[in-house]
Amino acid sequence: MKLWDKGIPINKKIEKFTVGNDRELDMFIAGYDITASKAHARMLGKVNLLTLTEVEEICRELDKLQQQLNDGTFVIGEEFEDVHSKIEFELTRVLGEIGKKIHTGRSRNDQVLVAMQLYFKDNLMEISAKTGTLIDVLLGLAKEHSEKVLPGYTHLQVAMPSSFGLWFSAYAELLIDDLYLLEAGLKIVDQNPLGSAAGYGSSFPIDREFTTRELGFKTLKYNVVAAQMSRGKSERTVTSNIASLSNTLSRFAMDVCLYMSQNFDFITFPDELTTGSSIMPHKKNPDVFELIRGKCNKLQAIANEMILITNNLPSGYHRDYQLIKENSIYAVESIKEILDIFIYSIALIKVKEIDINQEKYKYLFTVDSINDLVMQGKSFREAYKEIGKKVQNNTYEASNPKKHTHIGSKDNLGLAEIARKKDEI
Amino acid sequence: MKLWDKGIPINKKIEKFTVGNDRELDMFIAGYDITASKAHARMLGKVNLLTLTEVEEICRELDKLQQQLNDGTFVIGEEFEDVHSKIEFELTRVLGEIGKKIHTGRSRNDQVLVAMQLYFKDNLMEISAKTGTLIDVLLGLAKEHSEKVLPGYTHLQVAMPSSFGLWFSAYAELLIDDLYLLEAGLKIVDQNPLGSAAGYGSSFPIDREFTTRELGFKTLKYNVVAAQMSRGKSERTVTSNIASLSNTLSRFAMDVCLYMSQNFDFITFPDELTTGSSIMPHKKNPDVFELIRGKCNKLQAIANEMILITNNLPSGYHRDYQLIKENSIYAVESIKEILDIFIYSIALIKVKEIDINQEKYKYLFTVDSINDLVMQGKSFREAYKEIGKKVQNNTYEASNPKKHTHIGSKDNLGLAEIARKKDEI
Amino acid sequence: MKLWDKGIPINKKIEKFTVGNDRELDMFIAGYDITASKAHARMLGKVNLLTLTEVEEICRELDKLQQQLNDGTFVIGEEFEDVHSKIEFELTRVLGEIGKKIHTGRSRNDQVLVAMQLYFKDNLMEISAKTGTLIDVLLGLAKEHSEKVLPGYTHLQVAMPSSFGLWFSAYAELLIDDLYLLEAGLKIVDQNPLGSAAGYGSSFPIDREFTTRELGFKTLKYNVVAAQMSRGKSERTVTSNIASLSNTLSRFAMDVCLYMSQNFDFITFPDELTTGSSIMPHKKNPDVFELIRGKCNKLQAIANEMILITNNLPSGYHRDYQLIKENSIYAVESIKEILDIFIYSIALIKVKEIDINQEKYKYLFTVDSINDLVMQGKSFREAYKEIGKKVQNNTYEASNPKKHTHIGSKDNLGLAEIARKKDEI
Amino acid sequence: MKLWDKGIPINKKIEKFTVGNDRELDMFIAGYDITASKAHARMLGKVNLLTLTEVEEICRELDKLQQQLNDGTFVIGEEFEDVHSKIEFELTRVLGEIGKKIHTGRSRNDQVLVAMQLYFKDNLMEISAKTGTLIDVLLGLAKEHSEKVLPGYTHLQVAMPSSFGLWFSAYAELLIDDLYLLEAGLKIVDQNPLGSAAGYGSSFPIDREFTTRELGFKTLKYNVVAAQMSRGKSERTVTSNIASLSNTLSRFAMDVCLYMSQNFDFITFPDELTTGSSIMPHKKNPDVFELIRGKCNKLQAIANEMILITNNLPSGYHRDYQLIKENSIYAVESIKEILDIFIYSIALIKVKEIDINQEKYKYLFTVDSINDLVMQGKSFREAYKEIGKKVQNNTYEASNPKKHTHIGSKDNLGLAEIARKKDEI
Repeated sequence: MKLWDKGIPINKKIEKFTVGNDRELDMFIAGYDITASKAHARMLGKVNLLTLTEVEEICRELDKLQQQLNDGTFVIGEEFEDVHSKIEFELTRVLGEIGKKIHTGRSRNDQVLVAMQLYFKDNLMEISAKTGTLIDVLLGLAKEHSEKVLPGYTHLQVAMPSSFGLWFSAYAELLIDDLYLLEAGLKIVDQNPLGSAAGYGSSFPIDREFTTRELGFKTLKYNVVAAQMSRGKSERTVTSNIASLSNTLSRFAMDVCLYMSQNFDFITFPDELTTGSSIMPHKKNPDVFELIRGKCNKLQAIANEMILITNNLPSGYHRDYQLIKENSIYAVESIKEILDIFIYSIALIKVKEIDINQEKYKYLFTVDSINDLVMQGKSFREAYKEIGKKVQNNTYEASNPKKHTHIGSKDNLGLAEIARKKDEI
Repeated sequence: MKLWDKGIPINKKIEKFTVGNDRELDMFIAGYDITASKAHARMLGKVNLLTLTEVEEICRELDKLQQQLNDGTFVIGEEFEDVHSKIEFELTRVLGEIGKKIHTGRSRNDQVLVAMQLYFKDNLMEISAKTGTLIDVLLGLAKEHSEKVLPGYTHLQVAMPSSFGLWFSAYAELLIDDLYLLEAGLKIVDQNPLGSAAGYGSSFPIDREFTTRELGFKTLKYNVVAAQMSRGKSERTVTSNIASLSNTLSRFAMDVCLYMSQNFDFITFPDELTTGSSIMPHKKNPDVFELIRGKCNKLQAIANEMILITNNLPSGYHRDYQLIKENSIYAVESIKEILDIFIYSIALIKVKEIDINQEKYKYLFTVDSINDLVMQGKSFREAYKEIGKKVQNNTYEASNPKKHTHIGSKDNLGLAEIARKKDEI
Repeated sequence: MKLWDKGIPINKKIEKFTVGNDRELDMFIAGYDITASKAHARMLGKVNLLTLTEVEEICRELDKLQQQLNDGTFVIGEEFEDVHSKIEFELTRVLGEIGKKIHTGRSRNDQVLVAMQLYFKDNLMEISAKTGTLIDVLLGLAKEHSEKVLPGYTHLQVAMPSSFGLWFSAYAELLIDDLYLLEAGLKIVDQNPLGSAAGYGSSFPIDREFTTRELGFKTLKYNVVAAQMSRGKSERTVTSNIASLSNTLSRFAMDVCLYMSQNFDFITFPDELTTGSSIMPHKKNPDVFELIRGKCNKLQAIANEMILITNNLPSGYHRDYQLIKENSIYAVESIKEILDIFIYSIALIKVKEIDINQEKYKYLFTVDSINDLVMQGKSFREAYKEIGKKVQNNTYEASNPKKHTHIGSKDNLGLAEIARKKDEI
Repeated sequence: MKLWDKGIPINKKIEKFTVGNDRELDMFIAGYDITASKAHARMLGKVNLLTLTEVEEICRELDKLQQQLNDGTFVIGEEFEDVHSKIEFELTRVLGEIGKKIHTGRSRNDQVLVAMQLYFKDNLMEISAKTGTLIDVLLGLAKEHSEKVLPGYTHLQVAMPSSFGLWFSAYAELLIDDLYLLEAGLKIVDQNPLGSAAGYGSSFPIDREFTTRELGFKTLKYNVVAAQMSRGKSERTVTSNIASLSNTLSRFAMDVCLYMSQNFDFITFPDELTTGSSIMPHKKNPDVFELIRGKCNKLQAIANEMILITNNLPSGYHRDYQLIKENSIYAVESIKEILDIFIYSIALIKVKEIDINQEKYKYLFTVDSINDLVMQGKSFREAYKEIGKKVQNNTYEASNPKKHTHIGSKDNLGLAEIARKKDEI
């Protein structure tokens, strides 16, 4: 049953092509459609397009569908093209004429829109919460390993001394930036589009402020054309914000994979987080972090897909928008899984003792050596040249490591300040 | 002169390859480098690594360079690889040993970083301001043309009545979403990275809170590794936020180009905004809006470039980061120009009277017809079928257009609410 | 059962995360794995690592698995992480020690690689064939409608006369370009990687030329490191070539959607190819072509995803490569479906008669008018100015349409030449 | 002077916005415009739209402009919006009425198109030639260092023995794949678009086969609409093919940067190819290869930009196409520079002796150990388990390294076969 069925038989192949995997995807938003349909019904009651009894009956049936969803018995059969057809069908099947009234003053466009906004809103909050947890875990690891030295690299060349404390808390602080973006994304999706109908509003005397309050949206997307165009904008925003977060996680995962190489040998993980090879029995591969990296890189590609699908389309709905549902939902579900795995796995990291006195790390301390000369009165640039000459003549000997005193340095991590920055969001 | 010159002659071709167009690009950040160098010098004074006289002399020379910059006489000659070398050279040329002290406790890494953050900060504020102006202009146009009818399309098919008021204010409201993202971007760049040196901090007793206050940053990027990794994160964020804004403008420009086609004929622009053809003397092409569209699409590609360059690189500086300077600066400069042109051009739009009674617009009012039946007691779905049958039998006659009463609809635009939403940012 | 199982229990969540949807995806390559495993077994026989009886038994069991695949009874159960584990397990279950020999001289790496190359090879040929069919259909439509006039646009402005013949055959000729790229892609995947094992070859005396002939590959990827790095390169190439084809189809679909708008009204399709609206009973939306456009745009995003996942990874296998399987297979399967739908749908197009004498098309003929003046002896530029003045003074009157004589023009389409160009590939 | 000047003053800011940097970019195609203009003039002579004297005079003047170009005295002044206006202006300035005839039967559209196709054609051949040279250099290095052992990694974990011979020749063979794509790109651009005028052909009796022969194109883009749509398709193809090549080079550069790290210490370069740090006097950074990597990654982003600008635009020219000129030319010029630098630099590589007996490389030989057991009659999978147990119990001792005999392996590189594959293109 399709809402727009005009009695014309449709080639099966075409149907598969047009419906796609909407039925599966709609399971992610079914609950939100039910919630929004209830708010819509109550609003229709308030403006006297439904009687109170009609509202009650509709809400009761919608509650039953919600219950089926909770029980895992809600199924969108092949006879429906999407969850929206299914729900209207169910209401009409049980309630007859009353069910046929639910679509008054709305369109499938704003029905999808409002469900998607609610889905995005809930999930952005959940993603932010998980990110917050990861920040806490990383700050904990930073504290735990704050004294452990780690060579610092630039250009992948041995550069200056760093520490595990610095490394863990660096990613913690970078994740706060991602929270800022998620927060902006939340503002963008926390606007009620219901009532925009097919993108040009309704001639029924609907009350959009009522549904806004009812659904807990912070505000409305007032303009109905703008509300319709949130389709696309929300998906671009959400996937782009997730991409930013993914980039941070992907970078971290790259470090992990590199530091686990025998040539670095800085960290390791318990066997449950590594996998083997089909021909090399000695292998302990960092597959979990490689997959985090790869999946995060995949997520970074999705924002571009959203742009490619919606770009250069004139205003007004186009069917192309159906296609952005899939990967925006994928991005949301995937990042939550990645965060869970990341939090679980990083906590199992084993930090190794690194012997900083190996020949290859010798030049970690040239800047400290310059510092000595500066303290003796040389200008920085002269001291730089003097140490440089020693390095070139192969007469350089490493200084004693110096403590770094300033905030955010290896010996003064500023973990409390970073935590406070996060808490102030 | 290169700061790291070790007296080894470098092949010219290699030099061109490595220096690239840094000298030109650095003109955009030269002023910020001077500002940050002054703050750095004052901080060195505060912690007694420079005497007060030294600080004064350095600041005076830096002020002179700033003056040259204002006068247009500041030039980064071919003997310098970038503005940073140039400035240290100038200080040393004039001040001798004192100049050689300016680089104490910093590295070119954090020097570039702090200049870029200041550049981005100023510019994000400017871009937001220009976007605000455009919103105002659009709200003004919406008010002016609020009564003028415009066919509304879905799937590029005639759908329901819209209005010029709706069209203009839709984009105004969508631009507010872009402001949310710009605001988040601002938080990300408004963090002082100075003092992170090469990404692992400094063994000198520098005072990073002092430079933070001095430079007007809201907070620090505390962790020095995180500060270094802001390189890349800032560029990805800023270009991604600009991409979001560009997408909105590009969509608007597409509408403009379409609506100017003789087949729509909804709007026109004065001759100064159209161009002709080398062989067709009748052409008045909407080149300005086509270029806005194209340039905005180009800007949407840049965020992806930032990701591609920085992706999968382990932590720590890599020379690849030099390459993200070019297009992040391009994105900033380009969007400002686009906003200026947009504001100027859209104000010159001429809205045409559209005869809504043409045969092709006949079905704009089917939803109003359904409304009539619903008001007479039919359920929505039955009414839908009845009108549908008339359309199919070719017996449908258009209803009288109905007023839309709800907020955000064509007859109740909610311009004040939209303006308030903007003001509350 | 995992080939690399070391007896350590693995957290379920981690397993789901690492295995992903490999079992489903592997159904697309299962047959190719069986084919390649047979070739591998025969080769092991040839170099005396298996006896002839062992080879026969292995091949017979593999044939049974192939039969199961044909019958739809082949299932990769949850106990297997992929098809490769499953097949080795089955051989061992039935054949005991003999089954344990199949993996001699190969690794899962080259096993996946060879199956993917065979899958890509078959499919690139199929995609090319379907594209060839579409070209034929379009050339047929061009011939059928060669006389029907169509306004030509530049900048979406009425420009010069075109024809349906030109329009259809334009896309036919552009698709030939896409065939060139598919042909290059075929060369890239038509190289045998088997024998590269984990990317560093084998110390067993395997015969890679033998398996190359056996599998019908045109050549080998000789170097084993290069063979391993085909993972990624093949996926980037195939998806990028599909993206090029998609771009052509997407552009065509955009034209279709635009030309179906009431404001153009150039073409239409039978009802079975259009869909309706949930609230507007009059709608006949071009959903099929909108979905073609959207899906083709999605396909254009995938090449970028392949780059993002593999970019900046050092040589040697990384688990990230598992993730490029999904969307490269999706791209292949999707473009085949799109081509089928396109071929089916475009053949149903109804071309309308366009009244070129409408006021809005008046200036289609200004270049013909210039032509008249040139034939009378004026220089082109002077004639251009003269007609331009008439247009500006509103005194221009359209010329009689002129025949275009040169090859590839509206009145001399060159369909045979285009067909020949295609046939010469 | 603009060809389409209608005497209306144009706001300066708008002019800058619309003209962009066309004047600079057009210097890359100026010579090709002159060549194509000569062919066009001769064709006009052949079909009697110009007299032979007129043709001669025009060609003589065009030759003079070509001479200026060779001498470096050809300048596109600010009074011209592009090279095409400039050339027509020069012809008219010197030849009067005759100059005004050059634009007969063409448009600026096909004038730009033909110049771009010629530019791309020449450059794709040059890029292929340089790539061929690089392949030769790499095969030479492979031969020179064929005996030198290199640890092979998977998942960045020590895996199996590899060699410098394998490493160098792997990239040589991968570059052959890129040549296949460049070859396809060449076919796509080697089609004459001249005569398509504004995209709808010409009513003048022009002879397109004549100009095709004259310009050395292999064939025509027959259909004039297709010819116009080559704008975009050529740029997407060329940049996408360059992206493929860039990906190969970028991967190689990543290996180089990693192998230069003190933690790998496999290779080094002479000082002229490394750069230093502004604060760490010991640094020898692999900037050249980092910039190769970064620039190649930038090039991989450009194909996506081409898609974003042209996507979803209906057929027919749009001004947006002006914007794809910049980065497609950038991609061409940049890859040539990168190839030059790569060829120059890689030849200077210093390969180090790697002590494979270090503890960290111990497990390189587990597959050889399995091989020993298989040769003693164990099945592969049993042997795998046995060695696996030893590894786990810490009782594993490395086998003696085995020779690999099969083609493409470390001890049988197949360099002649790879060279032959390249030569057969």
